[in-house]
Amino acid sequence: MTKKIKAGIIGATGYAGAELVRLLCGHPQVKIEAASSKSFFGEEISEIYPGYTGSVSLVLERDPSAVINSCDVIFAALPHGYSEGLGHDCLEKEKVFIDLGADFRLENEEDYKKWYGSSFSYKEIHKYAVYGLCEIFRDRIKNAQLIANPGCYPTSIALGLYPALKYGLIEQEGIIIDSKSGVTGGGRSMTQSTHFPECSNGFSAYKAGEHRHTPEIEQSLSKFAGKPVRVTFTPHLLPVNRGILSTIYCVLKTDPDSIRQRYREAYAGEPFVQVLADGDYANIRNVRLSNNCHISLHFDIPANRLIVCSAIDNMIKGAAGQAIQNMNIAFGIHETSGLKAIAPAF
Amino acid sequence: MTKKIKAGIIGATGYAGAELVRLLCGHPQVKIEAASSKSFFGEEISEIYPGYTGSVSLVLERDPSAVINSCDVIFAALPHGYSEGLGHDCLEKEKVFIDLGADFRLENEEDYKKWYGSSFSYKEIHKYAVYGLCEIFRDRIKNAQLIANPGCYPTSIALGLYPALKYGLIEQEGIIIDSKSGVTGGGRSMTQSTHFPECSNGFSAYKAGEHRHTPEIEQSLSKFAGKPVRVTFTPHLLPVNRGILSTIYCVLKTDPDSIRQRYREAYAGEPFVQVLADGDYANIRNVRLSNNCHISLHFDIPANRLIVCSAIDNMIKGAAGQAIQNMNIAFGIHETSGLKAIAPAF
Amino acid sequence: MTKKIKAGIIGATGYAGAELVRLLCGHPQVKIEAASSKSFFGEEISEIYPGYTGSVSLVLERDPSAVINSCDVIFAALPHGYSEGLGHDCLEKEKVFIDLGADFRLENEEDYKKWYGSSFSYKEIHKYAVYGLCEIFRDRIKNAQLIANPGCYPTSIALGLYPALKYGLIEQEGIIIDSKSGVTGGGRSMTQSTHFPECSNGFSAYKAGEHRHTPEIEQSLSKFAGKPVRVTFTPHLLPVNRGILSTIYCVLKTDPDSIRQRYREAYAGEPFVQVLADGDYANIRNVRLSNNCHISLHFDIPANRLIVCSAIDNMIKGAAGQAIQNMNIAFGIHETSGLKAIAPAF
Amino acid sequence: MTKKIKAGIIGATGYAGAELVRLLCGHPQVKIEAASSKSFFGEEISEIYPGYTGSVSLVLERDPSAVINSCDVIFAALPHGYSEGLGHDCLEKEKVFIDLGADFRLENEEDYKKWYGSSFSYKEIHKYAVYGLCEIFRDRIKNAQLIANPGCYPTSIALGLYPALKYGLIEQEGIIIDSKSGVTGGGRSMTQSTHFPECSNGFSAYKAGEHRHTPEIEQSLSKFAGKPVRVTFTPHLLPVNRGILSTIYCVLKTDPDSIRQRYREAYAGEPFVQVLADGDYANIRNVRLSNNCHISLHFDIPANRLIVCSAIDNMIKGAAGQAIQNMNIAFGIHETSGLKAIAPAF
Repeated sequence: MTKKIKAGIIGATGYAGAELVRLLCGHPQVKIEAASSKSFFGEEISEIYPGYTGSVSLVLERDPSAVINSCDVIFAALPHGYSEGLGHDCLEKEKVFIDLGADFRLENEEDYKKWYGSSFSYKEIHKYAVYGLCEIFRDRIKNAQLIANPGCYPTSIALGLYPALKYGLIEQEGIIIDSKSGVTGGGRSMTQSTHFPECSNGFSAYKAGEHRHTPEIEQSLSKFAGKPVRVTFTPHLLPVNRGILSTIYCVLKTDPDSIRQRYREAYAGEPFVQVLADGDYANIRNVRLSNNCHISLHFDIPANRLIVCSAIDNMIKGAAGQAIQNMNIAFGIHETSGLKAIAPAF
Repeated sequence: MTKKIKAGIIGATGYAGAELVRLLCGHPQVKIEAASSKSFFGEEISEIYPGYTGSVSLVLERDPSAVINSCDVIFAALPHGYSEGLGHDCLEKEKVFIDLGADFRLENEEDYKKWYGSSFSYKEIHKYAVYGLCEIFRDRIKNAQLIANPGCYPTSIALGLYPALKYGLIEQEGIIIDSKSGVTGGGRSMTQSTHFPECSNGFSAYKAGEHRHTPEIEQSLSKFAGKPVRVTFTPHLLPVNRGILSTIYCVLKTDPDSIRQRYREAYAGEPFVQVLADGDYANIRNVRLSNNCHISLHFDIPANRLIVCSAIDNMIKGAAGQAIQNMNIAFGIHETSGLKAIAPAF
Repeated sequence: MTKKIKAGIIGATGYAGAELVRLLCGHPQVKIEAASSKSFFGEEISEIYPGYTGSVSLVLERDPSAVINSCDVIFAALPHGYSEGLGHDCLEKEKVFIDLGADFRLENEEDYKKWYGSSFSYKEIHKYAVYGLCEIFRDRIKNAQLIANPGCYPTSIALGLYPALKYGLIEQEGIIIDSKSGVTGGGRSMTQSTHFPECSNGFSAYKAGEHRHTPEIEQSLSKFAGKPVRVTFTPHLLPVNRGILSTIYCVLKTDPDSIRQRYREAYAGEPFVQVLADGDYANIRNVRLSNNCHISLHFDIPANRLIVCSAIDNMIKGAAGQAIQNMNIAFGIHETSGLKAIAPAF
Repeated sequence: MTKKIKAGIIGATGYAGAELVRLLCGHPQVKIEAASSKSFFGEEISEIYPGYTGSVSLVLERDPSAVINSCDVIFAALPHGYSEGLGHDCLEKEKVFIDLGADFRLENEEDYKKWYGSSFSYKEIHKYAVYGLCEIFRDRIKNAQLIANPGCYPTSIALGLYPALKYGLIEQEGIIIDSKSGVTGGGRSMTQSTHFPECSNGFSAYKAGEHRHTPEIEQSLSKFAGKPVRVTFTPHLLPVNRGILSTIYCVLKTDPDSIRQRYREAYAGEPFVQVLADGDYANIRNVRLSNNCHISLHFDIPANRLIVCSAIDNMIKGAAGQAIQNMNIAFGIHETSGLKAIAPAF
């Protein structure tokens, strides 16, 4: 038996961090060596998440650097601005760093300034950052040391549009993205709008045209298209725990059959992306608790539109699952290792 | 005290019919004189809807014609194809007929054939049918005898786009409508996809580009614009009971301030349409159980887009409530009579 | 037309207060003259509860005494300890005071000290307080000036057990009460356990044998029985917004038919209490948004047990609705006035 | 590597069957060799449960005997009455048979007749049936060939009461069990009460004192106590997908500390039963999607009551998970194999 990878989690008690803990506990080639939490250091994680009682034994540390020192791979699940320095430390100490936050996702510092309100602090290390959209940038992720794990909305959208833009099947102008996310996307912090009685019968858009994931989405789509792509992006809050469905409207440049074929080819052999049979619709319930992305293709021929529906679990393929997939690729182990959970039927 | 209007309901045990019963029981100028049900005749309605126990006493009849004969106004809440003959009978007997189904909504028989698969049976009476979108066609509804109550999706969309198209604030081409509806929109009939365990964590689109409400939507928008309007319409199923939110994407022809002003003017004085303050978002929870329509306006200036969010309760403003509003207008009583319920805070 | 009762609400932005506002807006003989809020004074209530937009126009005041001075009846919906002084002021100014909190519910100061941790501050006024369980203490409520509106759990339980204890149909020993409440019972304040993602798939008991409603429950039951009654009471948190179901287990002293008959007699003519048909079960969905209490009776004959199921809307019959019913009785107007809302079918 | 156990599932498209498929796909020592479905033979299971797309490839067979012939262990997830003959066939063919239905749970044929309305057809084989409550009857399960997998309610209750009855910590008389189950307990068949709009805001008891699990519960409890135990059992329907919480009321015979200690001892070393820390409450969310049973102990000392809260996932520890645990024991492999899933934090 080969030695297990020692994994550390910084920010282990936020939702993405807690999901990393759960998934890594089931990873056959990984051992969680250390985890830290600013709010709950000194406690057992099962005191915060009682579902872990009896299954996970992990006392939270205070100090991120202790986590870095003791591990081979470090996952950071922190608010933006907190990861950059940790990434720098990991690079120095030759540890693999996988950031689930926003600090390394945007290549263009101007974009970061505009949307996040601050400059890069360690400008020189951003060139080492690899954008960890696994299916598309797999080759760059191999042996990467600094991986920017994609955002949840951007993952659903980039996978949904990659073949269309890569192969010029749609106009790159006029793309409309109407996304809907479960409440875990807002994290563990309490807000009035996520207080159960005020959330449970509601549904609305928020931050229309001004969500911080917009530049990340456009960065990916522009790479696929080979030219600048500008989108209209409107997120909505769904009164369910998990899942993102992005409904994406594009102007067609070719016929439905060609599009279906290109999508099937593009994702042939991919373990985590399923292009659904004609007539089926991507549904968040069918990817819940799995690392899968379901894509369905629909057409409004009189209006010359392609409608792509792309569904993921925002906490797995949209966060902790893809982060582990990135680790698997970076360490050269089987890409599905630790990620074989099937979406439950109900 | 003036004499009460005698109201009859044909199809009183479907969801729209049951909602009519509930709302009419609280209408100060109306008495429910008779109600019929094909499935439950002979029973008290509180046996089917136990929430009515102690509040509603109404034995269901079998025969629609008994309902017609005994009432001043007849509401039909039936699957398409069942109302046309009843409308004919009501006209002959000089009763006001308000159809909550699809039989009289489409003016163009070819559209009806294409989307519903059959011809009109009583062609000559369709010219008397008034499309009951109250805020827009109020003058025609006064003294109307045959009223086609609008569909739920079309109501949310037509109210959301009326000022924009009427006053030429947007291009009439390229309109994208992404709508989300609560499960009651599918009615009382059981289906696997609305079985609680298979519905409760799910969210998906359905009938993208092929929903039967499409021609009704286009008929209204074309009237507003004064020229043919073609839309892309994708409905989705939300795992909540009530509510429709339509997120509508349009190409701007003018500036945000002008649009906001036009919307406010267009709906000034309307008791049931609220154009929200800048920055607020229309949310289905805020119109639940009320006859209100909340409209919010958002802008993606770099992409030159107006984004309209329009929220209604699909069963009230989208069905039974608007039907009563139509009755109120047709009978010349106060338009808000029986419709003053406020959306509960939770 | 007679002059309207001027009503004031102190604590109008908590859940019970907001529900009072909504219900009083639909009361034909009441005008909301003033309302105050410690947290949101100066704001329109529709800024806190956007569902009130277009229906309610009410600017919140800071000062409770301004509310008291300008009104005929004052409702207080405050945490315990804040109402006693206001009740004192109302008595002095000869205003009717209806307290939705706990300050006047317990007759025995020792009980109050034990469960709430403090003494009465205005001992002399407690003798004027009438416990406002309307169906049982109606005669005392007429012309009362100081009314203690019952708690939500106690209302469901007292109505469920009144005939059984009053007529000696059960042993007064060994009563077990297993209650389940919707999340609004916890109020508007955010907690981790009512954060949507941590509440939505959960269900558990809390405060078993130590909930503050226990002495209030025992006080009522003891009055009905004419001797001290001690119960075991376990509340649970249901992942729905509204409703309480209490399942109550008692030892039978007579046969099912006698019990059913006594219950029917006890509540004959009561507009808000329905004893369900044999075989039907009380369900929170059938009383939602109404002032009704549904009671169903079940028997485990081999174990000699009566099982009573009692369902109310915790925010209406369990709070704001019963408070208005108390006002109606105290002012001698029709008891159902403003409370005719029917539970929606869905 | 040792040869994998060939598992077959008869009734693979009901909820318990589908859950077996999902869990067995993740079992390292098992291969699903065949599965049958009366309703969906000839189809891929992912056509019925689209969440399995990309993860499970399994064409459903028509003929149960083909499943039996090709497998080492056969799971039957069928309505009562359909398993007995299959069990007979498996015994003859020396296959291990694990029945998730009711046919072999009751030892006393009279009980079966009374509650299920028919006699045993193969009387002689019932003596071989072992009741598969793993933690309690582990020794008998080893090498068993015919295993009756316990019902969902009975599992939660038997585990919750075992130490109390075994060690005489409570009176065996007067036990009250108030259980609440998620909707999946009712299975995949559609009913009006599990139609989403009529289920989603509701909560009620059903079959109080007359649920078919009662004799099974009493059979187990009587064994633990060594004398006949009679209970009052009231199930309720919770508007969530998964989970059972049983709140159990017993008369104390000893002090809280002794009880806590006995419970901790009784389940020490059990991988799937956790006795929670004092003050914590068993919650269905904390066992969701796991094979765990959480037990919490509470006391109402003035009333001399022990209150046990016992939570399981009705579809896992209450059905498919315990069935696999039984297989693991019967085949002598590690008891937690394939059952290590941790309850997700949200």
